[in-house]
Amino acid sequence: MTTAMSLNWTLARRADRLNPSTIRELLKLTERPGIISLAGGLPSADTFPVAELRQACEAVLTTAPREALQYAASEGFGPLREWVAAELESQGLKADPARVLITSGSQQGLDLVGKVLLDPGSAVAVESPTYLGALQAFAPYEPVFTSLAGDDEGPLPAVLAAARGARFAYLLPSFQNPTGRCLSAPRRQALAAAALQAGLPVVEDNPYGELWYDAPPPPPIAAGLGDQALVLGSFSKVLAPGLRLGYLLAPAALYPKLLQAKQAADLHTPTFNQRLVHHVLSTGMLPAHVAATRARYRVQRDAMAAALQAHMPHQGPGGVRWQVPQGGMFFWLTLPEGMDATALLPQAVAAGVAFVPGSTFFPEGGHGNTLRLSFVTVPPDRIEAGIAALAGVLRTA
Amino acid sequence: MTTAMSLNWTLARRADRLNPSTIRELLKLTERPGIISLAGGLPSADTFPVAELRQACEAVLTTAPREALQYAASEGFGPLREWVAAELESQGLKADPARVLITSGSQQGLDLVGKVLLDPGSAVAVESPTYLGALQAFAPYEPVFTSLAGDDEGPLPAVLAAARGARFAYLLPSFQNPTGRCLSAPRRQALAAAALQAGLPVVEDNPYGELWYDAPPPPPIAAGLGDQALVLGSFSKVLAPGLRLGYLLAPAALYPKLLQAKQAADLHTPTFNQRLVHHVLSTGMLPAHVAATRARYRVQRDAMAAALQAHMPHQGPGGVRWQVPQGGMFFWLTLPEGMDATALLPQAVAAGVAFVPGSTFFPEGGHGNTLRLSFVTVPPDRIEAGIAALAGVLRTA
Repeated sequence: MTTAMSLNWTLARRADRLNPSTIRELLKLTERPGIISLAGGLPSADTFPVAELRQACEAVLTTAPREALQYAASEGFGPLREWVAAELESQGLKADPARVLITSGSQQGLDLVGKVLLDPGSAVAVESPTYLGALQAFAPYEPVFTSLAGDDEGPLPAVLAAARGARFAYLLPSFQNPTGRCLSAPRRQALAAAALQAGLPVVEDNPYGELWYDAPPPPPIAAGLGDQALVLGSFSKVLAPGLRLGYLLAPAALYPKLLQAKQAADLHTPTFNQRLVHHVLSTGMLPAHVAATRARYRVQRDAMAAALQAHMPHQGPGGVRWQVPQGGMFFWLTLPEGMDATALLPQAVAAGVAFVPGSTFFPEGGHGNTLRLSFVTVPPDRIEAGIAALAGVLRTA
Repeated sequence: MTTAMSLNWTLARRADRLNPSTIRELLKLTERPGIISLAGGLPSADTFPVAELRQACEAVLTTAPREALQYAASEGFGPLREWVAAELESQGLKADPARVLITSGSQQGLDLVGKVLLDPGSAVAVESPTYLGALQAFAPYEPVFTSLAGDDEGPLPAVLAAARGARFAYLLPSFQNPTGRCLSAPRRQALAAAALQAGLPVVEDNPYGELWYDAPPPPPIAAGLGDQALVLGSFSKVLAPGLRLGYLLAPAALYPKLLQAKQAADLHTPTFNQRLVHHVLSTGMLPAHVAATRARYRVQRDAMAAALQAHMPHQGPGGVRWQVPQGGMFFWLTLPEGMDATALLPQAVAAGVAFVPGSTFFPEGGHGNTLRLSFVTVPPDRIEAGIAALAGVLRTA
């Protein structure tokens, strides 16, 4: 056996577009015991519905073990698809269980969208900054990202119309990761009208819509797009991310290709997980559960807002700036021009606090003076201590 | 709102390579009540370890609910990766937990391999017939499939060597789907030597290795490839497919790209499922459980062998031919030249029995006179009745 000889493994060109996640690498640095991590986007484990899931396991394994543990349809579990369609209808969308695909987290929805819609060189219009996981999901299909200019209200409708020719615009109107921004109802309507005018498809991602602390977000942009809506959703933020359960609603003309891509990718999302979540949902516990999660996160958001106001140096124009998010999981800070959040991170970690530098969320890079802080993972007293430590680092810098 | 206007959804070129699964469409026809389906590759639900999984749910949700329901590392759950590495080492492979990636079923492993290794036009050398799910997973990356000529012993080493230049050869040496064929130890060694000689990478898929009924299969082909082995495995056939849990072992040079592709595709395989399966494995139940599954399937295989011998018309050269598989889930039948299994299927369904026409498993099509029969899904008495019905249809034809 000539094992000294080697095999000529050759990578696909698209593999150049697969790269280590900056955030993941950073998170490894920040996982040292004692660090107050405001970096990760981890939901508070205190919100996980453990008792309800325990009951669901017992119920599913008692009433339908043969079905729950067997191969199943790529579309997903019928009753769960019906629940999703009803939920989307309640948000103002035109939905139909037949156009709902259950995915392995909404991250998989992003991958399937990229696989079915993107050729090398295709333009994808994105907010800037935008969700890093979407950039990572789309990147291996070798698109060109174009940033949608906006104002404090979100992307500008005229800019969206000018993106005509892109395969789609990827939009996160409700409590966006990373900025926490929520678009107003008029802006959403104007964006839908602009998309229709330009014929520009919209892929709307809504993982955070249920996490509102002051008022529910307006109806989705896609509510103005009739049966042409392609929207993504997730159970990760309202139940538990470790179950990896998400969904998408697609136009009828696209659904079969997305379904075939899903089948090729992993046959189907775990039947067991789908039935567990459906059982939990069917108890009717979700509204009260989400309300409790909102109440918890509202306190944590307020704690971070108070801590920022109490500790941050040089607040306001030309100094350290932020807006209090009305929902979601993140504060977005802009530091004085010329400061570099990436360079500050090691000092922050040395001082016992971690954050995510903001430049990683911009498809074009730059914006080194921005950073993202999560307020959902650690409790209020540690939020206060973390912000105080971060303020000390900024003051020194 | 001008909803009469439409959005210009444009499909990626690769979407042309996504198509409805012939098998899935056929299965829909065959799911009528009363049909004895020998078509699907569904494990017997009687083998699912329901009691053990119930205990595992209770244990995991009691001891580690916060971790089991949270986001987790894309690589997979550490102790499960260690278990997989030890298992692969016991098969004769050179393994290391650091090169093990937990996947959402081994179907996802195939997708990730395609994503990282295939450019449009890349050659992939495959057995003919081969696993349909692999053809479907690779197809959207637009490769060219080339069939490896073989004899009763499997692909010919000289033919493998001549496939030099392909991105990889995809091989299923143990109880292949659809033929049930198991390659001998000398043929495996010769194939490994030929691959090394030609520098041709090998992707070895082993979902059925544990399902042996006479003697365990020889060590994997990749046992001759040192640390260059890329092998895929699954818990679907030894525990339950509805958990969607598989794994791959990759060369160190490829592992980071496969990991990044996994992260982009779905972040990670459900933490909860990984911990459930690890808990079940850690009880030490697997050897006895798999032995019981083997005993059950051996009886069913023998029932199908006896029924074929008792009922099939015109057995032997020029007539209806098969070999009794030494493992796996399938009998592979060759009908007299000129017969068309696809055309016979409606008559078979009318007679109360379903099978899968064989031509779908050939990348180049053709071979209309072949068909696949599963012996694991239905119990012996229904196997006998199903084969008798099928024999009646063939006799009439």
